[in-house]
Amino acid sequence: MVRLQPPGYLKLLQADTFQVSYAGAEANVLVSLSRFGHDTDYITKLPCSDVSEALVGTLRRHRVGVNNIVYGGERLGLYYLERGASQRPSKVIYDRKYSSISQAQRDEFDWDHIFEGTDWFHFSGITAALSPNMPDICEDACKAAKAHGVKISCDLNYRATMWSREEATRVMSHLAKYVDVMIGNEEDADNCLGIRPENTDVTGGKLDYSAYEAVARQIFERFGTTSVAFTLRGSISASENNWAAMLYQDGKAYYSKEYLIRLVDRVGGGDSFSGGLIYALLEGYDPQQAVEFAVAASCLKQTMEMDFNLSSVADVRRLMDGDASGRLQR
Amino acid sequence: MVRLQPPGYLKLLQADTFQVSYAGAEANVLVSLSRFGHDTDYITKLPCSDVSEALVGTLRRHRVGVNNIVYGGERLGLYYLERGASQRPSKVIYDRKYSSISQAQRDEFDWDHIFEGTDWFHFSGITAALSPNMPDICEDACKAAKAHGVKISCDLNYRATMWSREEATRVMSHLAKYVDVMIGNEEDADNCLGIRPENTDVTGGKLDYSAYEAVARQIFERFGTTSVAFTLRGSISASENNWAAMLYQDGKAYYSKEYLIRLVDRVGGGDSFSGGLIYALLEGYDPQQAVEFAVAASCLKQTMEMDFNLSSVADVRRLMDGDASGRLQR
Amino acid sequence: MVRLQPPGYLKLLQADTFQVSYAGAEANVLVSLSRFGHDTDYITKLPCSDVSEALVGTLRRHRVGVNNIVYGGERLGLYYLERGASQRPSKVIYDRKYSSISQAQRDEFDWDHIFEGTDWFHFSGITAALSPNMPDICEDACKAAKAHGVKISCDLNYRATMWSREEATRVMSHLAKYVDVMIGNEEDADNCLGIRPENTDVTGGKLDYSAYEAVARQIFERFGTTSVAFTLRGSISASENNWAAMLYQDGKAYYSKEYLIRLVDRVGGGDSFSGGLIYALLEGYDPQQAVEFAVAASCLKQTMEMDFNLSSVADVRRLMDGDASGRLQR
Amino acid sequence: MVRLQPPGYLKLLQADTFQVSYAGAEANVLVSLSRFGHDTDYITKLPCSDVSEALVGTLRRHRVGVNNIVYGGERLGLYYLERGASQRPSKVIYDRKYSSISQAQRDEFDWDHIFEGTDWFHFSGITAALSPNMPDICEDACKAAKAHGVKISCDLNYRATMWSREEATRVMSHLAKYVDVMIGNEEDADNCLGIRPENTDVTGGKLDYSAYEAVARQIFERFGTTSVAFTLRGSISASENNWAAMLYQDGKAYYSKEYLIRLVDRVGGGDSFSGGLIYALLEGYDPQQAVEFAVAASCLKQTMEMDFNLSSVADVRRLMDGDASGRLQR
Amino acid sequence: MVRLQPPGYLKLLQADTFQVSYAGAEANVLVSLSRFGHDTDYITKLPCSDVSEALVGTLRRHRVGVNNIVYGGERLGLYYLERGASQRPSKVIYDRKYSSISQAQRDEFDWDHIFEGTDWFHFSGITAALSPNMPDICEDACKAAKAHGVKISCDLNYRATMWSREEATRVMSHLAKYVDVMIGNEEDADNCLGIRPENTDVTGGKLDYSAYEAVARQIFERFGTTSVAFTLRGSISASENNWAAMLYQDGKAYYSKEYLIRLVDRVGGGDSFSGGLIYALLEGYDPQQAVEFAVAASCLKQTMEMDFNLSSVADVRRLMDGDASGRLQR
Amino acid sequence: MVRLQPPGYLKLLQADTFQVSYAGAEANVLVSLSRFGHDTDYITKLPCSDVSEALVGTLRRHRVGVNNIVYGGERLGLYYLERGASQRPSKVIYDRKYSSISQAQRDEFDWDHIFEGTDWFHFSGITAALSPNMPDICEDACKAAKAHGVKISCDLNYRATMWSREEATRVMSHLAKYVDVMIGNEEDADNCLGIRPENTDVTGGKLDYSAYEAVARQIFERFGTTSVAFTLRGSISASENNWAAMLYQDGKAYYSKEYLIRLVDRVGGGDSFSGGLIYALLEGYDPQQAVEFAVAASCLKQTMEMDFNLSSVADVRRLMDGDASGRLQR
Repeated sequence: MVRLQPPGYLKLLQADTFQVSYAGAEANVLVSLSRFGHDTDYITKLPCSDVSEALVGTLRRHRVGVNNIVYGGERLGLYYLERGASQRPSKVIYDRKYSSISQAQRDEFDWDHIFEGTDWFHFSGITAALSPNMPDICEDACKAAKAHGVKISCDLNYRATMWSREEATRVMSHLAKYVDVMIGNEEDADNCLGIRPENTDVTGGKLDYSAYEAVARQIFERFGTTSVAFTLRGSISASENNWAAMLYQDGKAYYSKEYLIRLVDRVGGGDSFSGGLIYALLEGYDPQQAVEFAVAASCLKQTMEMDFNLSSVADVRRLMDGDASGRLQR
Repeated sequence: MVRLQPPGYLKLLQADTFQVSYAGAEANVLVSLSRFGHDTDYITKLPCSDVSEALVGTLRRHRVGVNNIVYGGERLGLYYLERGASQRPSKVIYDRKYSSISQAQRDEFDWDHIFEGTDWFHFSGITAALSPNMPDICEDACKAAKAHGVKISCDLNYRATMWSREEATRVMSHLAKYVDVMIGNEEDADNCLGIRPENTDVTGGKLDYSAYEAVARQIFERFGTTSVAFTLRGSISASENNWAAMLYQDGKAYYSKEYLIRLVDRVGGGDSFSGGLIYALLEGYDPQQAVEFAVAASCLKQTMEMDFNLSSVADVRRLMDGDASGRLQR
Repeated sequence: MVRLQPPGYLKLLQADTFQVSYAGAEANVLVSLSRFGHDTDYITKLPCSDVSEALVGTLRRHRVGVNNIVYGGERLGLYYLERGASQRPSKVIYDRKYSSISQAQRDEFDWDHIFEGTDWFHFSGITAALSPNMPDICEDACKAAKAHGVKISCDLNYRATMWSREEATRVMSHLAKYVDVMIGNEEDADNCLGIRPENTDVTGGKLDYSAYEAVARQIFERFGTTSVAFTLRGSISASENNWAAMLYQDGKAYYSKEYLIRLVDRVGGGDSFSGGLIYALLEGYDPQQAVEFAVAASCLKQTMEMDFNLSSVADVRRLMDGDASGRLQR
Repeated sequence: MVRLQPPGYLKLLQADTFQVSYAGAEANVLVSLSRFGHDTDYITKLPCSDVSEALVGTLRRHRVGVNNIVYGGERLGLYYLERGASQRPSKVIYDRKYSSISQAQRDEFDWDHIFEGTDWFHFSGITAALSPNMPDICEDACKAAKAHGVKISCDLNYRATMWSREEATRVMSHLAKYVDVMIGNEEDADNCLGIRPENTDVTGGKLDYSAYEAVARQIFERFGTTSVAFTLRGSISASENNWAAMLYQDGKAYYSKEYLIRLVDRVGGGDSFSGGLIYALLEGYDPQQAVEFAVAASCLKQTMEMDFNLSSVADVRRLMDGDASGRLQR
Repeated sequence: MVRLQPPGYLKLLQADTFQVSYAGAEANVLVSLSRFGHDTDYITKLPCSDVSEALVGTLRRHRVGVNNIVYGGERLGLYYLERGASQRPSKVIYDRKYSSISQAQRDEFDWDHIFEGTDWFHFSGITAALSPNMPDICEDACKAAKAHGVKISCDLNYRATMWSREEATRVMSHLAKYVDVMIGNEEDADNCLGIRPENTDVTGGKLDYSAYEAVARQIFERFGTTSVAFTLRGSISASENNWAAMLYQDGKAYYSKEYLIRLVDRVGGGDSFSGGLIYALLEGYDPQQAVEFAVAASCLKQTMEMDFNLSSVADVRRLMDGDASGRLQR
Repeated sequence: MVRLQPPGYLKLLQADTFQVSYAGAEANVLVSLSRFGHDTDYITKLPCSDVSEALVGTLRRHRVGVNNIVYGGERLGLYYLERGASQRPSKVIYDRKYSSISQAQRDEFDWDHIFEGTDWFHFSGITAALSPNMPDICEDACKAAKAHGVKISCDLNYRATMWSREEATRVMSHLAKYVDVMIGNEEDADNCLGIRPENTDVTGGKLDYSAYEAVARQIFERFGTTSVAFTLRGSISASENNWAAMLYQDGKAYYSKEYLIRLVDRVGGGDSFSGGLIYALLEGYDPQQAVEFAVAASCLKQTMEMDFNLSSVADVRRLMDGDASGRLQR
């Protein structure tokens, strides 16, 4: 997607320039993984245009594989992001209806070819929500992945403007059966799988962990998901968030440290968590280390501009290992 | 529409900011007329969003009436503009499919209400090309305009990426019957009405006038159009154009002066010609003065950034009356 | 006025660009009210120039009425704003002496015409301070307003660089007799009306409310003012302020919630409070709701760039109703 | 003065940033001379403010002496500059009424102290036009300069918005008696001294030299001016000018080469001519070389942004000696 | 190299921002070839730093191979570019002494590995001039290339600040024996090979072709070079250049069309010529077509910002086939 | 040095513009002192180039003396600064090897001439670390200073990338004998003099004072240093630091207030402390006042962009005297 953002704290109607960047739920995850040293490949459909070329060039610059992208269709989705501050929320306005990927057909992706020699497949609930034929395409991919012994992770990523809780629950519960690592935020399990944490309030700054352990257990029990991870965001204000996560694995919940983040840009925070978690699991980190790595990675993302996490493994490890002082490096 | 443009001469894939402005064929004409002192009203359909609000605010700032805009639908069209230089052409990439206006229904516009107390109605061939139901909406408007004694002008504005010459000719020949003042560039009559000038070459810098007189006469004869105007652009390069126009009225062709323009931004040039011509005709200028005013107005537009002509009547008259020296005013 | 500001945290002498915007105490209030849905009309005097046109265009874009502005005189006032941070204060340098409005004559404003069909008249103590003939013009306006049954609000807005406490007290005590709703910050009552809160310290971060209740009562008793409102700003630093207000009505003080604001731009905070309060009173909010609305509105303003509050009623109500989390909206 | 300019070719009402620089007729001349290696001293009056400090810092950075500046008064003059292009003229809007220098008193300048050890005094007709007491101050300076054997140059610099031709002629004819080197453009002699060139047209691109020789002779005859110089600007458009000059000395006219300039910024062109001419005369160049140096210097100025000529002597000599190719230096 | 450039026409000492891009003689050629569809590989040595990473990312985004870059050493070269206009020349200030590549050792490059499966090797005289051990490294590369049957092209690229004509001639005459395609501008043959065209003047705007044919013949005769190409630049001013080229092959000179370019950025013009020529020769164009393609490609480059030619083959062919009108594409 | 910085919070590899400023440890100190009203003189060696001219102009604008700068050598050092936020550290990448000053020779500086009429000499440990011949040059300067009765201050300024602790300790222990006022941060005494505070942790936000008193006493005892000052930085995050200092004099430690700073730019913080301390000592402040002044000055610096402290004495005194509210000044 194209991301268009007024500079600084300007509201959309005050801006006569937009900062332009390129992003997308899965693309963000792949950039994380590429920068951590893994080979990646981005599967999507884009229209033939100079705008797509700019997006593809951006991915290529971060070493994300772009050779299996399908070209065609009418448009590239975009979104406007107005950055909030203090009590004023940030605001995202999507304009992605009728995008090429949303209009893609099942026979346009050769999943057997794609998954050859692949270790991991990640997709987002947003993708499943794009249009009526996307759930089938997602299922095609999941089936092929399973057939090739590829691990599957899914970020539930519920978007209320894209589908209702009922639709989301119908589709995502079906796809959940294929998923090895299920990722979501505090509200996703409720919205996408119909599993609700009790006694939680997402608009306060405090993080309430305990409720999520029960949710994770239910997911494991209902769908057989090996690992379930929840990011926990405590919104003190649009300028400051608490940030932590829980990883549920083998019947046990592992809680990360909690970071108080002075936000530079919180968009892409969840995707960088997924990227960090997949990296840690691929590298064989134990569950506690894995959730610490993923949370530290996504904490750093939120101190950077734009959707991508540009941290190195060393950057993440330094934070995860305890140096949160932000002390000048020279 | 939203207009997104890399700064200066950057190519789209080099840009990480876009200059944002708001534009549209009819909106551009209305801004010209508002700034020349007339009351105007913009009829369109826009989605409910902060982006629409930004567009509407921009029009309001230039005194264009916005109270009859219909709200609803899914998206606001946009276009990317990459500015060329010298031998490198400027490039426009449209992303306006499925815009709210293109999906509008006939019963959403109350033309009788709209045309009450109105003198003039202007529309663009682009609008007719937006979707299959737009020709009917245009015809509804034309019929209502006629019923209220409103003069009608139309800028043919052929866009090859929107429809074929066959479709354009079918639709525009039908609508042409309602039109009092027909406006086009060198290629429009051929593409939209099937009437071709002989022996002309639009890629050279020289302007060949004589051929257009015959075309205008045919339009008058076939559709009964009172006035026919052609803008004549001689593309020396992306940096310099010759610019002139012909107005055909009462069986006679009136040729304007020819200006050599060092282009700042040529987009909106045709619309500012329409705005200038409508103003001049409303004010009762004689044909020679009318075409001179319209050409001087659109010459000045092309020395300004963005789609709108921000000139005053006095600015246009000074140029039209002979002072093209650009001498510093203090 | 023209507002000129170095970008970000640059000091004036480091800047080679200024961000330009247009503002003014009463203009800011009117933009608030226009955006909340009321019809407004800005009464001032401006020189004939492209700079005035830019200011007027900006107001028009926010739907502020500009048809009764008087044109003439020599200059448009301006101010330079250097944004501070942490322990470094923001700094305003005014250059508004000899502005057209300050040189205006009493007979230039046709108050009877202006107040026809009007519900509310708002003016600022700054306007009264502009020049020796401004108090008379203000009084003319107040008298005419009273004659037309128009409610009057006044923001005391003391500026030490414009007049002495003695002058201010002489003029404002005289005008206070006409005022229905008197608005001020912690120091204004002392400086403009000679009524001093006891035991307060405005340079600390803590807000001391109780003292202001007594001040309000005295204003009510001395001038018969129906409503008295004080904004209370606790300056923790140039980056963070506490913000609250008190509304005194019918012998009772209503205290708002207190907000800790990470400041984006605190200039215009008081004006947006006035705008919010006038809106709430016009809508018939009860005193507690009115002061909550006004404080929430002005809290949001201070999270935005430039003088204007661009919030909608819905934005203000969401904050006032308790959601201060700044959680991303999409 | 503060100079405020919309970026690029934006019109004033399109801009939300201004490029800020600091300038002034005599300041511009001094920067030229300082950069050519001479010691200089700027005599003016400025208000005490951070804005003045920014101006003074700018001069200091170019090695202009600032130790004799008088501080006090109310404001610093400013001007808005809108850059034109092609047929659209550039536009200057002054806001310098009531500036500190215009309100200065005769006894604020200690001319005897100032002229100690000084070789040259330069002033502009603009300064004499600022207010009714400025002609006396200019005359004080001229008398003191004469008493100290200091050479005097004056750039007539007529500004129609500042005074009438009658006032200008009265004042400048009086001051002309003190002047050794009189400088002007094509229209100044007529407007300031009542001496009119015959058969000239400044709005065409062609330069008509011969008429100016007679004007110079009359100035010499009437005022005893040793040297008279006229810059000759042929305005092809706001983007391209022809530029040349004539120096009249000892009864003979010396014509410079003529340059076709693609303008970057023509403001300050005349001042850089004065700077170049004073330099050349101080260095003992012969008249032909002097006028060539001054024209080459001011040609280069007009290829730079802002009012100052930042060329070195070597830069000017290279152009004056024939290399106008603009060939890349590395 | 890092390229640092004041925005627009600002001089270096006026700038408080620099536009940053990444470039280099060979890198520029490779970007051209990559964008034309060929696989490429960049051989250089860079220090380990985030700045190198930025450069490498930029190359990767344009599909240039970066896997054989050697890391180590102390610094990355950089240059400052001040853009001239009209009579004011552009200016390059290099700061590349002690760069990692200049300090590289012969044994750091495994040429046999590098040339496996390669068709073409291109190097620049600049590289040979970087330090005393670079000629040997260049010769190593040339010998290995020959051994693998790889074609060799060399752009003489004389830089007077890097070495004397004597040194250049000694080194480049030695390396010339390996070169199949020798490329240079009007002065390179003289400076690097001691072969001087007669009666030519590079500072005028006119291009004098005939002299270069004799020079090319001498190069062919002395070094056995299959193809010799000269770019011919006529510097009308810093804003406008004439541009053409000659290709000498099989005893015959092929002259290209000549383009009058309104320069956006002439830096990288020669490199884009090399890129275009190599592409055309690899594709088997006949000599006339090859020189036309190379000149059209480099003409387009000079209408773009920064060092890289971002044109597609289709863009170049459209210009080469005659459409130089710069007419808007939509 | 040239300082190159991506705008805002962009990472180096995201930036296509850099903010340019000019800085250096001693230059920063001199700018502080110049702005506080003292005459200063900058001794360094710079290459002859427009970049040096830009640096020198910047110093001149702040009234720093530049007449004793030596010109020659090959390059001007530079550094890249990437601003961090929250848990993400800021990052400095130096590129100053082979700078002109680092290659300077002992006989290039005429210290006797330089120190004539001078009160104070300040140097930084960075300068001593630049190259093997710098310690001798520093010692030459110290000896000459002593001979002229000039007070000497030294900021230890350890940089791990420039030399090892062993080298630093060898050189700085030797130079320490000349120093009257020794300045450092928490780690410098350990790294440069081999004297280690006990039980301190610089990566936490808390400041631990007591340990530093013992370190200062040892420095006094070992080197006879009259005054020893340590700045104490508590890194809560890259966005917020605690900041304080201790001055040890006459056997007693004076502790300053502690400031919680919302950082705008912490680079140059130590230099502004040195500037403030030297000023206070030159003005005869008592030790408690001196350390308060120095800490308040450097607190303010860290709320400004770029390396320089642009505060006035009045600004510093207002903060030092207790007003840390950042309340708007108008």
